[in-house]
Amino acid sequence: MTTLGFIGLGIMGGPMSGHLAAAGHTVRGYDVHPEAIAKLTAAGGIAATGIADAAADADVVITMLPNHPQVEDVVLGPDGVLAAARPGTLLVDMSTIRPETSVEVASAAAEKGIRVLDAPVSGGQAGAEQAALSIMVGGEEADFAAARPLLEAVGRTIVHVGPHGAGQVVKAANQLVVGGIYGLVAEAIVLMEASGVDAKTGLDVLAGGLAANRILELKRESMVAREFRPGFRIDLHHKDMGIALAAARQADVSLPLTGLVAQLVAAGRSMGYGDLDHSALLKVTEGLSGRAQSQE
Amino acid sequence: MTTLGFIGLGIMGGPMSGHLAAAGHTVRGYDVHPEAIAKLTAAGGIAATGIADAAADADVVITMLPNHPQVEDVVLGPDGVLAAARPGTLLVDMSTIRPETSVEVASAAAEKGIRVLDAPVSGGQAGAEQAALSIMVGGEEADFAAARPLLEAVGRTIVHVGPHGAGQVVKAANQLVVGGIYGLVAEAIVLMEASGVDAKTGLDVLAGGLAANRILELKRESMVAREFRPGFRIDLHHKDMGIALAAARQADVSLPLTGLVAQLVAAGRSMGYGDLDHSALLKVTEGLSGRAQSQE
Amino acid sequence: MTTLGFIGLGIMGGPMSGHLAAAGHTVRGYDVHPEAIAKLTAAGGIAATGIADAAADADVVITMLPNHPQVEDVVLGPDGVLAAARPGTLLVDMSTIRPETSVEVASAAAEKGIRVLDAPVSGGQAGAEQAALSIMVGGEEADFAAARPLLEAVGRTIVHVGPHGAGQVVKAANQLVVGGIYGLVAEAIVLMEASGVDAKTGLDVLAGGLAANRILELKRESMVAREFRPGFRIDLHHKDMGIALAAARQADVSLPLTGLVAQLVAAGRSMGYGDLDHSALLKVTEGLSGRAQSQE
Amino acid sequence: MTTLGFIGLGIMGGPMSGHLAAAGHTVRGYDVHPEAIAKLTAAGGIAATGIADAAADADVVITMLPNHPQVEDVVLGPDGVLAAARPGTLLVDMSTIRPETSVEVASAAAEKGIRVLDAPVSGGQAGAEQAALSIMVGGEEADFAAARPLLEAVGRTIVHVGPHGAGQVVKAANQLVVGGIYGLVAEAIVLMEASGVDAKTGLDVLAGGLAANRILELKRESMVAREFRPGFRIDLHHKDMGIALAAARQADVSLPLTGLVAQLVAAGRSMGYGDLDHSALLKVTEGLSGRAQSQE
Repeated sequence: MTTLGFIGLGIMGGPMSGHLAAAGHTVRGYDVHPEAIAKLTAAGGIAATGIADAAADADVVITMLPNHPQVEDVVLGPDGVLAAARPGTLLVDMSTIRPETSVEVASAAAEKGIRVLDAPVSGGQAGAEQAALSIMVGGEEADFAAARPLLEAVGRTIVHVGPHGAGQVVKAANQLVVGGIYGLVAEAIVLMEASGVDAKTGLDVLAGGLAANRILELKRESMVAREFRPGFRIDLHHKDMGIALAAARQADVSLPLTGLVAQLVAAGRSMGYGDLDHSALLKVTEGLSGRAQSQE
Repeated sequence: MTTLGFIGLGIMGGPMSGHLAAAGHTVRGYDVHPEAIAKLTAAGGIAATGIADAAADADVVITMLPNHPQVEDVVLGPDGVLAAARPGTLLVDMSTIRPETSVEVASAAAEKGIRVLDAPVSGGQAGAEQAALSIMVGGEEADFAAARPLLEAVGRTIVHVGPHGAGQVVKAANQLVVGGIYGLVAEAIVLMEASGVDAKTGLDVLAGGLAANRILELKRESMVAREFRPGFRIDLHHKDMGIALAAARQADVSLPLTGLVAQLVAAGRSMGYGDLDHSALLKVTEGLSGRAQSQE
Repeated sequence: MTTLGFIGLGIMGGPMSGHLAAAGHTVRGYDVHPEAIAKLTAAGGIAATGIADAAADADVVITMLPNHPQVEDVVLGPDGVLAAARPGTLLVDMSTIRPETSVEVASAAAEKGIRVLDAPVSGGQAGAEQAALSIMVGGEEADFAAARPLLEAVGRTIVHVGPHGAGQVVKAANQLVVGGIYGLVAEAIVLMEASGVDAKTGLDVLAGGLAANRILELKRESMVAREFRPGFRIDLHHKDMGIALAAARQADVSLPLTGLVAQLVAAGRSMGYGDLDHSALLKVTEGLSGRAQSQE
Repeated sequence: MTTLGFIGLGIMGGPMSGHLAAAGHTVRGYDVHPEAIAKLTAAGGIAATGIADAAADADVVITMLPNHPQVEDVVLGPDGVLAAARPGTLLVDMSTIRPETSVEVASAAAEKGIRVLDAPVSGGQAGAEQAALSIMVGGEEADFAAARPLLEAVGRTIVHVGPHGAGQVVKAANQLVVGGIYGLVAEAIVLMEASGVDAKTGLDVLAGGLAANRILELKRESMVAREFRPGFRIDLHHKDMGIALAAARQADVSLPLTGLVAQLVAAGRSMGYGDLDHSALLKVTEGLSGRAQSQE
């Protein structure tokens, strides 16, 4: 069994750290919200008094944080993980952040003899609770092999996709495709409804051919019914589209559809739908076509 | 058995008319290319001397033509189907055209007591040859019921989606989603490759989650390998994106992603890839990112 | 002085035909609305009983019609200009239509010995009333020379830009640039206002540098004040963006910004602003950013 | 006369600091490149040994740096301007950076009793050399009044546009409009050329009407001739489009055209044109339309 530090015990990190404790690992957890720590201790973990306390004696430190500024503070800060952890420690950053920061973290860690993986996840809150996440891992092969048994306690599909930052790149690619498909399905629905076609029937046809996709499979009924309970909130997808654009900039590529999808997702947030499921991109498309009244 | 006129015996109409003849129907076929007619007679059909000859004694006339100008000529022209066919004839236009023309055809036909369905297909040449097409049908319920046994000789999924033009609308919705997903997958590949991630591995991860789609399933290996044999040619998808934009204009809706996808598909054609499979949209994305050399 | 037929006596054609009559030409005018003909006769013109009557004895026929279907009917139809006019007649089509139709008209006219120019205008209703239009002319140099004295009665800037259809292409290029600049200025305004910057002050700065443009010069005050009286209506610009996309398709080019601008203008119409000035594209941008309330 | 610290003596900061020295101010300058400092001393300035030396005794400190990370280091770093400067010092950051950082700098400075203006410029290298820059200033009115005499030594149009960050917002708005107009003019050129219209003649017409803009005025001849010497490099405009998108994100607005223009400018860089003038966006548009050969 492994001695773990786990920093960031929120909607995702909370159930993940609980699964690791339940699997018999020693999990010393920290979060800025004391009640999040209390949940972990109730689940068999140990309360850390701070980042340093979580990291100092750990074999593996896992971080699960909102975005890159938090990762910079928690990992690179003067009282952060790299300052506190022993050489040889393995840091697994499971936050979804821009690849550039993952590479910077790996570089700073290497100077202290600390190994790093970037390991963002998809599958959302439900995936975290059911230990069914998909995990995209960037870093050294040997470190991936070392981390895999731990990751299996929280995820179902665990893939080593390349060097430092590669996990973030694949997550970004995933999110740009998902956001874009929502936008396309929304345009298909608006076109069909405005043309007097029953959208449900039409989407059934699409779902049977080359246009078939997981979003049509899982969400076409709720989208046609205008049910937008999350799921995965537009605000989070907005953050992820920012990461996709940052990754494109870092890789020196031009992604025109991603650029437009990012603005449509931004519109979802600006129009006040940030707390709805990302399928609510339909409301942006409706708004553009003057059909917002159909949403009641 | 039914007496059929079949006009347009090309890549799609050729095998479709053959299936109908093989099913025991009397198929009187016409095409501007005599060799296409010869193929039908070899398959058990009868050579018509012209449009009027094909349509005059038919119970059902099927048209399978390149685009709306041909439909206007063949159906509405002075020597066309409506001029030649008897009242009570059922015209099934299986061409992919803009919905507006389908509605005009239906209206002109009604004045002559001729019933009409618009019934565009998806599934391409392979679907036509294997009698496995998906058929989206617009028009009256009773006419759909009457045509269904014939359509079952050429298609596998046959759905009545709404009133006149609705078949075209659903086909347009299908094509905008398909074109858009190709564009998104292309951007994901370019982003991953330019970031040093193995695209094949990355796409495998995407195919296992919410980004999953039929195109990833069928085409991700050939796209990563830059194999672009059609399949469905970019030139045809370019035509179909024009129909999608015309349908949007007719329905008075705004479809920003469709508008951009249409220009990217147009770029594929302008850049000289019109005869490649529509997955070659990847070459447009590569070109934009200065990575065209990777294709050789 | 010239004997003229003038077909299409609406908002634009009305004052234009009046100027030509006032200049001493014999103007035989026709319109489907009798009151439009009455206005011309009051201005010194002659009422024609139909298209053929207007065209039959004319040296020059001018058409000023809403869009290409009307041009096809009026010029190419069985009772149209080409059927009625004498060989040697010069047809000047001043309608704004897609270049493809202008080329078809020129080709059909050539078979009858009739010469044709496409000569769309910009400057709007005010330009027509003040005889201050800009006129972009496509066709033969000699025909342009022949038409120029007439065009000078209605326009101020009169340029021969190339062969048949070229006038339409330049008009389309003009409209895509104008529509796009409105969209960009709208985004600048929304960004500045949402950031707490006084948009009027900010636009003053933009108008003094490389971002300077005629729209900023003429419309920045009215846009910031949300005054959208036409001017040039969004519905008309929507038609023109359709022509720009058709011209791009005809020329086999890819115009991504034009593709997106067309959908934003379409949104203006879909959202109910079709009768407002095209500067009301700002309302689309505001809607996307959830700032629509700021307009009241 | 004022005692000034000037940090960042490059292509822009070099001539600007020289103008200030020539105007009689005491200018203590620093740059990471010693030869840049040597130029200043040759122009009458004083060589500072580091940031602290430049800032410690200054009444006003001016910074002119490449992007926000450099501003963060130079201003906020442990040996930075805020650590070294006396309370009451006025810091004028003339770098073009995202508004968010300008606001952070102002906030950090306030804690130390240091006043701040953000004062990005437009006009490029030529504007800097000729002391003819446009300067957009964000911050307190009183501080603007204090800085104005100094700014007049380097700029011609100097406008106070709003609170902290407002200068950056207006600069971002300027750059999104400029980038977008280049893209639109490029699409107009490609459409006209591919349609057989002489682009020079066509652009002359556009420049005479509502499509008129400064870029058409200054650059249409060089664009048609494919002369792309900078001027303002695509690489810099790429940086600025990133700032525009960051500003939009910060302001919670959706800017679809800006999102697409950013990717087209990124394509210019990816395709290898980063060192050309931003008018070389035309090469991206040509590439998309398969017309790249026309550039030789």
